[in-house]
Amino acid sequence: MDTFVALDWGTSSLRVARIAADGQVLEQHHSGDGIQHVAFGGFPAVFAAAVERWRLAPGTLCLASGMVGSRQGWIEAPYCPCPADFRAVASRIAWVPDAPGGLRVGIVPGLSTEASGVPDVMRGEEVQVFGALQLLHLDEGVFILPGTHSKWVRVAQGRIVTFATFMTGEVYAVLRRHSIIGRTLPADDGPLDEPAFLRGVLHAREAGSLLHGAFSARTLALFARIPDTALPSYLSGLVIGEELRAHRLENSGSHPVLVGAEALTRRYQLALTAYGVQATTLGDAATWRGLAALAHTLEPP
Amino acid sequence: MDTFVALDWGTSSLRVARIAADGQVLEQHHSGDGIQHVAFGGFPAVFAAAVERWRLAPGTLCLASGMVGSRQGWIEAPYCPCPADFRAVASRIAWVPDAPGGLRVGIVPGLSTEASGVPDVMRGEEVQVFGALQLLHLDEGVFILPGTHSKWVRVAQGRIVTFATFMTGEVYAVLRRHSIIGRTLPADDGPLDEPAFLRGVLHAREAGSLLHGAFSARTLALFARIPDTALPSYLSGLVIGEELRAHRLENSGSHPVLVGAEALTRRYQLALTAYGVQATTLGDAATWRGLAALAHTLEPP
Repeated sequence: MDTFVALDWGTSSLRVARIAADGQVLEQHHSGDGIQHVAFGGFPAVFAAAVERWRLAPGTLCLASGMVGSRQGWIEAPYCPCPADFRAVASRIAWVPDAPGGLRVGIVPGLSTEASGVPDVMRGEEVQVFGALQLLHLDEGVFILPGTHSKWVRVAQGRIVTFATFMTGEVYAVLRRHSIIGRTLPADDGPLDEPAFLRGVLHAREAGSLLHGAFSARTLALFARIPDTALPSYLSGLVIGEELRAHRLENSGSHPVLVGAEALTRRYQLALTAYGVQATTLGDAATWRGLAALAHTLEPP
Repeated sequence: MDTFVALDWGTSSLRVARIAADGQVLEQHHSGDGIQHVAFGGFPAVFAAAVERWRLAPGTLCLASGMVGSRQGWIEAPYCPCPADFRAVASRIAWVPDAPGGLRVGIVPGLSTEASGVPDVMRGEEVQVFGALQLLHLDEGVFILPGTHSKWVRVAQGRIVTFATFMTGEVYAVLRRHSIIGRTLPADDGPLDEPAFLRGVLHAREAGSLLHGAFSARTLALFARIPDTALPSYLSGLVIGEELRAHRLENSGSHPVLVGAEALTRRYQLALTAYGVQATTLGDAATWRGLAALAHTLEPP
């Protein structure tokens, strides 16, 4: 393998990178061409435009992870069931028939798990976790991937054993935009107000349920006990604090790994610290490393 | 006192009743004239129209409870702090100056409480609780008033000691209308599907947080493990189950009183039964009885 192309193709955005045989990221680009913005039948053209600049030779390997493999994506890559290791995922890559330019385009499957008769799913985060394992030389641990739908992933002996989704980012957005709480919030979130954020984190633990805790964003505003400009940070603390509350991390000795964009992982770091928990943080590098590792499995350098 | 008029004047609706000295409800009417539909300065006219049919003599007592006493209401009746008994509430009734037709119009204050530095508030439910205490000859207990913002009220020695709000109904509505869960839900809720509802109640307990539990409404639909028509009932079970989970009622020996409209109290009854908890249920009668008791305090028969 010479170089290969990695695509992180989610619901709202598309990131592409050209990666060298040794794993070095040579060049990367970002666009708003998430799958929700691709018209029916439009995936080959959007893909071709995204990689055109590199004039790739036919047969070049291109690996994509994320919602591009969902039913609403380019082609469906059926979920790989947990527990799953790196090779199980690699063996289930779905290959796009007749990809543009004679390229070899593979779509990484997401993972599914089941607990108490209820399934859970993820697409894309599994690649980040495998990348994080390699970057940190780990084969076990708890990985937290914050986002619209946060994922908590448990790894043992190099395998993703199980995981759970928390609708944290989405619930923040719907409470902010569509509930009574939103009425006193300013139009923009503004910069993070750390004390207000931490106050929300701690109240979430106290409240025992977001259904109760969230109402405090209303009453504190009603009694002018918090400035309106601090309310977005407070509400963010309430929802992230609720996510942590549910995991009963205190005194667990757990040392989770946070993987994601800095703006979010910083909030989780702050919240975890308030819970007395230390965490390691990784950014985008985990995605590219995970896709590079899969590429090496398919085409050993 | 001959007869008096009771008004249950909330955000979305207005109910009025003419009540005899012995507490009997002689006549009642319902309209959509909730305070959110009353134009600025429009309260006297809406009130006059609502009681016009009774050609009330000047000086007749009219007592209103609910959001009509809020800052967005007719006149603001400042919150009465907990713990509060019946007489404390009666003594803080706010009297409308120059009410239409020379009527004596009083607005019942809501209650406020505070826990861990965070205030909580209610308006109208305190009247229902005092009415329930009288109807059931109780002076202590836990009272659950389901709704957009459910209230859990603790009474001891005839006083409302403390209470907590759960945004259950509102969170159901925003998840249904504005989150990814809503995509697979039918346009109308349809009749209650009891098994799906109870499945939601039990999953809420298992999930430990609605942020996680709610995602099951998405994945069960994705894997066709539940019919789309059952999803509204399942989601209702998830949010009501989350409210119960937070109270750790199991094996508590608690025997709460449910007060509210039958469509909702029936769901809470079902959910409580799944938790092994027995409950007593009361309907509208509690509001009229509570207002009648306040009226008798002001004008002994």
